[in-house]
Amino acid sequence: MYQTEELQSIINKRIREINFSSEPVELYSPIEYALEGGGKRIRPLLTLMACNLFSEEIHKAIDPAVGIEIFHNFTLLHDDIMDNADLRRNKPTVHKKWNDNVAILSGDAMMIKAYEFFFSLEPELLAKVLPVFNKTALQVCEGQQYDMNFESSMDINTDEYIKMITLKTAVLLACSVKVGSLIGGAGENQADLLYDFGLNLGLVFQLQDDFLDVYGDENTFGKKIGGDITSNKKTFLLINALEKAKGDIRSKLLYLLHDEPDIKSKIAGITGIYDELNIPETVKNKVDLYFNRAIKSLNNVNISENNKSLLIKLAESLNGREK
Amino acid sequence: MYQTEELQSIINKRIREINFSSEPVELYSPIEYALEGGGKRIRPLLTLMACNLFSEEIHKAIDPAVGIEIFHNFTLLHDDIMDNADLRRNKPTVHKKWNDNVAILSGDAMMIKAYEFFFSLEPELLAKVLPVFNKTALQVCEGQQYDMNFESSMDINTDEYIKMITLKTAVLLACSVKVGSLIGGAGENQADLLYDFGLNLGLVFQLQDDFLDVYGDENTFGKKIGGDITSNKKTFLLINALEKAKGDIRSKLLYLLHDEPDIKSKIAGITGIYDELNIPETVKNKVDLYFNRAIKSLNNVNISENNKSLLIKLAESLNGREK
Repeated sequence: MYQTEELQSIINKRIREINFSSEPVELYSPIEYALEGGGKRIRPLLTLMACNLFSEEIHKAIDPAVGIEIFHNFTLLHDDIMDNADLRRNKPTVHKKWNDNVAILSGDAMMIKAYEFFFSLEPELLAKVLPVFNKTALQVCEGQQYDMNFESSMDINTDEYIKMITLKTAVLLACSVKVGSLIGGAGENQADLLYDFGLNLGLVFQLQDDFLDVYGDENTFGKKIGGDITSNKKTFLLINALEKAKGDIRSKLLYLLHDEPDIKSKIAGITGIYDELNIPETVKNKVDLYFNRAIKSLNNVNISENNKSLLIKLAESLNGREK
Repeated sequence: MYQTEELQSIINKRIREINFSSEPVELYSPIEYALEGGGKRIRPLLTLMACNLFSEEIHKAIDPAVGIEIFHNFTLLHDDIMDNADLRRNKPTVHKKWNDNVAILSGDAMMIKAYEFFFSLEPELLAKVLPVFNKTALQVCEGQQYDMNFESSMDINTDEYIKMITLKTAVLLACSVKVGSLIGGAGENQADLLYDFGLNLGLVFQLQDDFLDVYGDENTFGKKIGGDITSNKKTFLLINALEKAKGDIRSKLLYLLHDEPDIKSKIAGITGIYDELNIPETVKNKVDLYFNRAIKSLNNVNISENNKSLLIKLAESLNGREK
């Protein structure tokens, strides 16, 4: 069985080897720039791990895994235009470094390029795997649209939020796992259990990200604490707080959101309200719920416990349980 | 054999039947709006005609043909953002009717949706056809990038222009024909001859469009005459004029391009220079060259003359030879 570091190095090696056309440079340089940005490569890692559950022959899964990673980075590139974000992984975003038109078009080319990485699959497998990826890709767009809609609304509940992050984030992790398992030779039932594992894992991942943005340790989280509060981002925490807050607390929360000029006071004030409303506990309960669902689905997959250990370890690390 | 009008009605019927998700409306309404805009449906028409060259069973080609049309309309949607165009087929463009973010994201979803229309193909055919489409899609992005680069340069020659329109326009017509022929059962050699037919037809189509924008009849052309001149668009005519114009004519051309405030004088003046430099003749010679190459490739395809007649008629209509 392959270890996590081996798989990561296989993925990064394959990404470095991609042979982009040299011309026109305005189209291809931004794609290389976006891909060399790194990130944790969680999605292709899941694909290779899931393949490796069923087969020692993981080479067939490498290109599709990279295709999913390219697609993921394409969504970040276009999302950054829509969110007018300046930085991504501590580097200027493509639309800031170049311009909006370059970012739109090189994003389009990147998405098309993602499909190319599935064509190494034999026809029967291609016909099975590509519709899974394609449906997921469309759902990710739906999720991004809901996310944008939410930004201009004060009336969202946590169920709607869970639906949004399911589409925007979780389905792609689910797809990564399912695609890997199918390439490894899993039957539809096993592949669907693994899809469910990935979906719940994706929810854990996003809810933890929301939580750590407020309660995390700046050194291990890798981003500035309080960024979501500063930008009034509709996270699970804020939406849950808006659901729960009544009377004076609600007035105070709305003041802090819209009228508090001092960033530090805003972060401290809203964090205080979260504490008062027991938001951390609610998030932890939700995270446990989805984490347990993920593990349950994985346990139902008919393979040796030993083979599952890497996926469980990855799930635990996303759940913040790992040291 | 199917007639052109039958094929057009099959295409439009299938497009009307597409079942888009209803939610989120901000994502799917613009796609429906963009697709109901009409247009000549030349690409899916070519796909069905090419399929019909080899088989009476054209039903397998309908969805892929529509997929190509969806992709084409996606490129228009994103191009309109990049060009900041207000109108498309006499209706407000998506980014004007909604906004840039909606246009970016619904365009992305539209491109993904295009792939879905190939999945009805049996695995062996999918594995043969989809890489053709995918390579083409990437080339179309390259063409759009060259087109944008040209807009900010005064130093382009007609060879570079032909390369740009080959990528931006001609390869998709070529792909439409090739995909249809492969679905109809053509061998690789026959499919490649038809690709070459489509490629040259695409060049005829674009050069005629450039020509008619200056010399066409407003009633039959469907657009305002002189639009390209007004916007200083780098058409074959302008690039060829910039190559040929020396001395006083060059100075006059540059004045008209950059400093003439009166639109009517600008159109009349530049048209006069085109006449003086024999640009219409050069365009016509180029059009004849590509038209003849297209017909030659078609003639080399090993099918009955009768079956080719529809494609020849379509080629003649794009060449402006048809009454």
